[in-house]
Amino acid sequence: MGPTAVLLLTCPDRTGVVAAVADFVWRHGGNIVDAEQHTDPEDGVFFQRVEFELDGFAFGRDDLHRAFRPVAERFGMQVDVRFSDERPRTAILASRAPHCLVDLLGRWAAGELPAEVVLVASNHPDHAELARFHGVPHHHLPVGDDPGAQEAALLDLLVAERVERVVLARYMRILSPAVVDAFPNRIINIHHSFLPAFVGAQPYRQAHQRGVKVIGATAHYVTEDLDEGPIIDQDVARVSHKDSVEDLARKGRDLEVTVLARAVRADLEHRVLPWGNRTVVFG
Amino acid sequence: MGPTAVLLLTCPDRTGVVAAVADFVWRHGGNIVDAEQHTDPEDGVFFQRVEFELDGFAFGRDDLHRAFRPVAERFGMQVDVRFSDERPRTAILASRAPHCLVDLLGRWAAGELPAEVVLVASNHPDHAELARFHGVPHHHLPVGDDPGAQEAALLDLLVAERVERVVLARYMRILSPAVVDAFPNRIINIHHSFLPAFVGAQPYRQAHQRGVKVIGATAHYVTEDLDEGPIIDQDVARVSHKDSVEDLARKGRDLEVTVLARAVRADLEHRVLPWGNRTVVFG
Amino acid sequence: MGPTAVLLLTCPDRTGVVAAVADFVWRHGGNIVDAEQHTDPEDGVFFQRVEFELDGFAFGRDDLHRAFRPVAERFGMQVDVRFSDERPRTAILASRAPHCLVDLLGRWAAGELPAEVVLVASNHPDHAELARFHGVPHHHLPVGDDPGAQEAALLDLLVAERVERVVLARYMRILSPAVVDAFPNRIINIHHSFLPAFVGAQPYRQAHQRGVKVIGATAHYVTEDLDEGPIIDQDVARVSHKDSVEDLARKGRDLEVTVLARAVRADLEHRVLPWGNRTVVFG
Amino acid sequence: MGPTAVLLLTCPDRTGVVAAVADFVWRHGGNIVDAEQHTDPEDGVFFQRVEFELDGFAFGRDDLHRAFRPVAERFGMQVDVRFSDERPRTAILASRAPHCLVDLLGRWAAGELPAEVVLVASNHPDHAELARFHGVPHHHLPVGDDPGAQEAALLDLLVAERVERVVLARYMRILSPAVVDAFPNRIINIHHSFLPAFVGAQPYRQAHQRGVKVIGATAHYVTEDLDEGPIIDQDVARVSHKDSVEDLARKGRDLEVTVLARAVRADLEHRVLPWGNRTVVFG
Repeated sequence: MGPTAVLLLTCPDRTGVVAAVADFVWRHGGNIVDAEQHTDPEDGVFFQRVEFELDGFAFGRDDLHRAFRPVAERFGMQVDVRFSDERPRTAILASRAPHCLVDLLGRWAAGELPAEVVLVASNHPDHAELARFHGVPHHHLPVGDDPGAQEAALLDLLVAERVERVVLARYMRILSPAVVDAFPNRIINIHHSFLPAFVGAQPYRQAHQRGVKVIGATAHYVTEDLDEGPIIDQDVARVSHKDSVEDLARKGRDLEVTVLARAVRADLEHRVLPWGNRTVVFG
Repeated sequence: MGPTAVLLLTCPDRTGVVAAVADFVWRHGGNIVDAEQHTDPEDGVFFQRVEFELDGFAFGRDDLHRAFRPVAERFGMQVDVRFSDERPRTAILASRAPHCLVDLLGRWAAGELPAEVVLVASNHPDHAELARFHGVPHHHLPVGDDPGAQEAALLDLLVAERVERVVLARYMRILSPAVVDAFPNRIINIHHSFLPAFVGAQPYRQAHQRGVKVIGATAHYVTEDLDEGPIIDQDVARVSHKDSVEDLARKGRDLEVTVLARAVRADLEHRVLPWGNRTVVFG
Repeated sequence: MGPTAVLLLTCPDRTGVVAAVADFVWRHGGNIVDAEQHTDPEDGVFFQRVEFELDGFAFGRDDLHRAFRPVAERFGMQVDVRFSDERPRTAILASRAPHCLVDLLGRWAAGELPAEVVLVASNHPDHAELARFHGVPHHHLPVGDDPGAQEAALLDLLVAERVERVVLARYMRILSPAVVDAFPNRIINIHHSFLPAFVGAQPYRQAHQRGVKVIGATAHYVTEDLDEGPIIDQDVARVSHKDSVEDLARKGRDLEVTVLARAVRADLEHRVLPWGNRTVVFG
Repeated sequence: MGPTAVLLLTCPDRTGVVAAVADFVWRHGGNIVDAEQHTDPEDGVFFQRVEFELDGFAFGRDDLHRAFRPVAERFGMQVDVRFSDERPRTAILASRAPHCLVDLLGRWAAGELPAEVVLVASNHPDHAELARFHGVPHHHLPVGDDPGAQEAALLDLLVAERVERVVLARYMRILSPAVVDAFPNRIINIHHSFLPAFVGAQPYRQAHQRGVKVIGATAHYVTEDLDEGPIIDQDVARVSHKDSVEDLARKGRDLEVTVLARAVRADLEHRVLPWGNRTVVFG
């Protein structure tokens, strides 16, 4: 199968949307290879993901958005156009803990993640050799006395490298509003608890003190409200009284790795539509 | 939302199917509330489930199939037309073990299963009082010296009661080919292992002897090849060396109950399309 | 195997405890069939569960506690002596929702729960027929204008029936401190979220609004701090954007049933040692 | 806590074993920090794992086995003595697929695996650089025209390097009986299905063709009967009709990584007692 276009559509729920979109694609020579939809009855909102082959389609990539405009305007749609062979320029940010970074780079090397990893940045120097092993430039951004300067340097770097996605692979610093605003629903974080339980610092210690029997991890888009962004994926593992805080952290690392990778993959496959502080994640 | 029609479509994968179906619904005043599709690239087969509101639709229920025929013929479709407010006449068959029967009747009483449970039949008399509690006729079909007579009586009963779905709730007898043939992909069985592991009798004993660390349950449509029918759902539970055969059976009962209920519900919500010995199970 | 005694021991962690207990049992003719232990290094506390056959043991049941006293005093132990063939007198409290009650009575009828269910009590009359079906007295305790009178009637009932365990099977009222105090770590509740997420009312609505991808259920001993009691068991299920609040509640019911039954069973099998707001749950 | 000794004991089930072992440790100044036991009632076999602090214990490591002999002989015990600070010399064997090897080396580097990884060997040259990154010697053992020569070279290597544990990290060749015999219950393999389903080659293809709704992975000790060795751990993941064979393989890789790591860790923590084709895996 050749490259495909993906339309991510959000609009008020109205009769005829499905037929209008299918007709648009069909009339211009596209073949729909996948289509999923969802209606939120409370908010009265319709979501759709339509994927069709570009081969034989009447419009080029640059013209597709414009060509679709009449349909979009008729239904008041918010439209996001993507292409299956795009590889968004992606930055991975890490602190000391290597596990998520190791995993993401490994998957990327194995061809599992349709992205271009253009840089690794960290407030610590530890991962320079790992990044080099994978042929990715490593940027050490120490915090020092002036956190604002580090944040500004980070934003400069992301802009200079024309970054389109940011993955926080257990990056332990809070991003500045300027960075968050520059990448709306384009920054994915992994939080080491099943949110909304145990927001804030040291969730494994909190979990141990509360005596829970499951721990979890949550991948979410980053918004200005810490730990409140739209959840993309979550998973949990059973634990018991035998597990110390360190055991929870160790078992949690496996969850963090898996959940973050699944969320990044869903995002890169254009399967996630954020809606307020929630998400629609298609198939 | 009023009643809806559901089209379950299977056809060779060809360009334009999605648009043609959406156009058919739209042109005749239907509003698509849900649509899912799947393409099997190996077999080159396309599957679709399209659900639309009947309110405002140009055709009555009896005419829908005929009206859709031109589209169906154009694409060589196999078509199954269903309605969300139908409640298929359902028979539940059980033997001695009560757990699946208790659960299904409880869910039915709670309104979870869109069916009309018209009878409970068993080769044992044990469940008569339970059936009476739920207001469902109970038929005791003892096997006796002539198994063929029992099988014939069962078939007569199902036909006389105009049964449309049969659920084997741990019914421990093998159905005669006559019964199986009379209800193609209309009989759901629960097998107490994660098929294809441990086909045949006493799967929990087999599991114990093999020393597995997970046990499972499998719900499938019944075909003439025992334990080989299309799988609708499966689930598993962790076990350990501590679990005796009896413990496995007890833990397995919880799995059987859950998996069977999920499969019956998926079938009754018109979300399952069998294909050979596999199934497509939508959303 | 004949009846066994179970010692549940909690004491400061000191050298020689394991040997002293094993020696006590052995010297008096008991055969240890199971022993598990746990040390909490932070609190410096040792927990042990020792189960041994009574057949051949030197002391009768009434004398066991006294005979063990020297060992207990030497190590500063808190001792709970139980017997495998005891069947604690158990009350099940429910409100309108039947699912946990149906399940517990079904398991009890199947011999899964080593208890004597002596009464069902409810602030609604709905479950009278179900209780009768299982041969258990049903008590309707309507709330009316004077909640305090209802609470007093409940406590009177539990005392009059010499109840030893109380199971809150989705009982939607808060117990009075007098009831809680009368049954320390003897009342098990099921909360319909993975605590500490979504404390308080309507956790499924909260979960839907937060857009979580897993829901959960938590069984815990009831203390005066609502939703803060020692957690015995938890479990979760994956959900998605497709699930309405009602879908979450339906899927959650299956979790509630399973988690509550597992917790009640663990308690009745003398496998749970509470410690502050946590628990040690042995295998 | 200082270093501990671990006794892994297997013997016919008889009264007094627990007390005799506890007494032995106690009388010679050891402090039991963990003890777990299991009785297989069908086979009449007793299993125990007893861990005690060496600090203050009367015997040195070399004398412990001899000192314990009277107890062992009295009960007919099979005894395995291990020490918590031992780091078994471990070889990891891989073929082309890197995921399990990457994961194990990463965990080892993070201090999660109490072993000394002394070599990586492969029938392909692909992982030389990865091994070098982790400072582990890499041995390329190509198969060529004479498989027997390769097998002999492998055995020579393992012997020369005084290897004590072998981990098959998706090593796709069948070990020769000579290698298997040289390391009884010392070789751990990961099979990419939930055994006993889908033995043999291409389990993901088999799973796809059968249309299962869960896939799994199994870690087991290697015996001469292929895929029949004692299972240490298993886990599964849900899949659907949407998953191609490649998707199953990708999702399966995450399972393989997790299950193999858990099994290797359990083995290195001296928590696994094999018994015939089954295992007892303690806490």
